[in-house]
Amino acid sequence: MLRAMNIAVMGTGEVGRTIASKLVELGHNVVLGSRTGDNPKAVAWATEAGDRASTGTYADAAVFGELVVNATLGVASVDALKSAGEDSLAGKIIIDVSNPLDFSEGFPPKLSVCNDDSLGEQLQRTFPRSKVVKTLNTMWNGLMIDPRKIDSSHVVFLCGNDAEAKSAVRRLLESFGWRTDEMLDLGDISGARATEAWLLLWTRIYAATDSGAFNLQLARV
Amino acid sequence: MLRAMNIAVMGTGEVGRTIASKLVELGHNVVLGSRTGDNPKAVAWATEAGDRASTGTYADAAVFGELVVNATLGVASVDALKSAGEDSLAGKIIIDVSNPLDFSEGFPPKLSVCNDDSLGEQLQRTFPRSKVVKTLNTMWNGLMIDPRKIDSSHVVFLCGNDAEAKSAVRRLLESFGWRTDEMLDLGDISGARATEAWLLLWTRIYAATDSGAFNLQLARV
Repeated sequence: MLRAMNIAVMGTGEVGRTIASKLVELGHNVVLGSRTGDNPKAVAWATEAGDRASTGTYADAAVFGELVVNATLGVASVDALKSAGEDSLAGKIIIDVSNPLDFSEGFPPKLSVCNDDSLGEQLQRTFPRSKVVKTLNTMWNGLMIDPRKIDSSHVVFLCGNDAEAKSAVRRLLESFGWRTDEMLDLGDISGARATEAWLLLWTRIYAATDSGAFNLQLARV
Repeated sequence: MLRAMNIAVMGTGEVGRTIASKLVELGHNVVLGSRTGDNPKAVAWATEAGDRASTGTYADAAVFGELVVNATLGVASVDALKSAGEDSLAGKIIIDVSNPLDFSEGFPPKLSVCNDDSLGEQLQRTFPRSKVVKTLNTMWNGLMIDPRKIDSSHVVFLCGNDAEAKSAVRRLLESFGWRTDEMLDLGDISGARATEAWLLLWTRIYAATDSGAFNLQLARV
């Protein structure tokens, strides 16, 4: 059992709110961080989510959280977390679930960074005193926090430079319902290049099958 | 049942030889094309593969084949097929199974083209009178030609601009053992951006699990 923590969830979109709600449900105290702090979606969320839920600026959330989840738009994540303050994030785990999706030319999106760099690495370089762990970015948010929506086994990747941070994230994933044999550690944070690039295929599969309610499974010989 | 055809397989590496052997086994006549035409690996392959197997230059193979399989190294594919001759390739289906892997900085590889372009698209642009269909590039070659090595269902993608060409490729995939419900059409040839980008993740999974004998399956809610 994971002890109750103070957690900052950065980003008030569907992904951020879904994860924040799950964390509250699991007994954690959550500040949902936004640029202005009084983002209407965040306020509505906090009202509904109950006593352990509140809102604040990115900076408020960063001070509050022992653990930080980045669920801001990938193309804006570096700036969002910069505005949270490097000192407030120092020493903390940043769980990066975002993807650097560039919709400027429509759907399917391109990636704003890829192949020889990644958002995960950009965050780790920008916040060298934090421990960035990339995970959960490869699937629909409904599965992130409730993997047992799928009967069979499926995969969640994680990568990052700090082994202890990855262990802590594994425990959090377990509390979400992930089985340890479903977690695949891709090594250091450069693995984010790989899991972010999967979005190029994910979005095409989504378009071809008209559904995002799937995840990747490895079929083995 | 697919009628026996004359097929050119470009590239004498493991992928090319594996596909060429399967095609011979299925009753097709195959020329394994290489730069020099007397590539020792190609000659050894043809000796072993029997009467329906022979070797030639890329140009010889292109003249011979009603259907052309590109299994050359991705970073060299455009030049290899250029040397085969645009006129000889005109009107024909080019099944592109290659990936633009760039190992110049070691493992894991980067892609020499990706995100907003792909090898599949480069080939289609270079050979506008040919019909490029990208398929099979997302997995180990042992699975390409024997998908039933895996008990459960798994996925093969295809994409290309010509619907008839994709239908013909579907029939060929079926003759390899693929079930129609395992084939996922990603639309036009720009889908190659997505399936080629999967190699960034494929190679990391390969490294993390110490095995390439897997394929992607879609687990659904």
